[in-house]
Amino acid sequence: MKIILIGSSGTIGKRIYDRLSKKHQIVRASRSGADVEVDITDAASIEKMYQAVSGVDAVICAAGPAKFGPLAELTEDDFYIGIRGKMMGQVNLVRTGQHHLNEGGSFTLTTGILADEPVFGSSALSLVNGAVNSFAIAAAMELPRGLRCNVVCPTVVEDSAEAYEDFFPGFDPAPMDKVVNAYVRSIENKITGKIIRVY
Amino acid sequence: MKIILIGSSGTIGKRIYDRLSKKHQIVRASRSGADVEVDITDAASIEKMYQAVSGVDAVICAAGPAKFGPLAELTEDDFYIGIRGKMMGQVNLVRTGQHHLNEGGSFTLTTGILADEPVFGSSALSLVNGAVNSFAIAAAMELPRGLRCNVVCPTVVEDSAEAYEDFFPGFDPAPMDKVVNAYVRSIENKITGKIIRVY
Repeated sequence: MKIILIGSSGTIGKRIYDRLSKKHQIVRASRSGADVEVDITDAASIEKMYQAVSGVDAVICAAGPAKFGPLAELTEDDFYIGIRGKMMGQVNLVRTGQHHLNEGGSFTLTTGILADEPVFGSSALSLVNGAVNSFAIAAAMELPRGLRCNVVCPTVVEDSAEAYEDFFPGFDPAPMDKVVNAYVRSIENKITGKIIRVY
Repeated sequence: MKIILIGSSGTIGKRIYDRLSKKHQIVRASRSGADVEVDITDAASIEKMYQAVSGVDAVICAAGPAKFGPLAELTEDDFYIGIRGKMMGQVNLVRTGQHHLNEGGSFTLTTGILADEPVFGSSALSLVNGAVNSFAIAAAMELPRGLRCNVVCPTVVEDSAEAYEDFFPGFDPAPMDKVVNAYVRSIENKITGKIIRVY
């Protein structure tokens, strides 16, 4: 399969790349220095990416900015960092991609446990994650030509557990293999409209 | 209690008003013609509303625009109708209101079953509902001075079931009394961080 992977240099993206590149053709997409350029906060840039890469069977998004911080201090603009980034970035990958992907192709988005289990400082990120979870199951119902859409929703992952341990007190980190399996399941299994919770 | 009710002329808002006004002082808020003016799509207008009404014990939002339509036709701007309206409108009611409400006061937001059970045409509305559900449980953890935040998440309601029956095929409408009870429970019971699903 030909798979666009957005965020291949991130904590999860690196592991996805390592696993999937053994079996599939991976087109890495990021703001600069990858196989194709994309800024997911910009709908026009997403359209350009799809124009530049043809014959795509799957899109994985493991990227998207959002702001972490106490509700007492978050401005409206802080919320819009996540809305324009991790939220509408992923929505636009599907919205635009529905006209480009090969028949039966799939979108695999990324959210996280904060949609269901918030932590102190997560309100803007919980908002984004909850939005994308619900969008993904709704979009899956409407996609044409057998296209599929799922979302991987992990808890804090092993490779970044130490860095984030003060923010996720008592959360069991998910093993990286288990997280990557969720992406493989979304892409290689024929499921759609699933929130694949890894916790 | 002194309660600000946004959307008191809507299908659910009317019923909330009828019930709560027997026991509480209700300040009706809407874009025009109510006790106090507010445009919830505008953060400055929300701030002005809180400046105009003092000593508030509870805020109920039963309003908020969002766009219904097929994913194949929704533009990015269509998504932003709901993001600026039902999503950030409700976020800003809490974000700004946390500095204004009386100690122990409560916010009761409104979402809907489309967060969990989408229908054809609901992707932008499912996104908004999922976002506000997750935001409400996250915000509840951080509110100061014993403030509380819950969200009422009804299925299609009896009073509008006929108008919407083609969009919600086979959905059991919720009786209006049961829907209003959810708001009463949020305000008069001391719960917080709850998504009160009425279905």
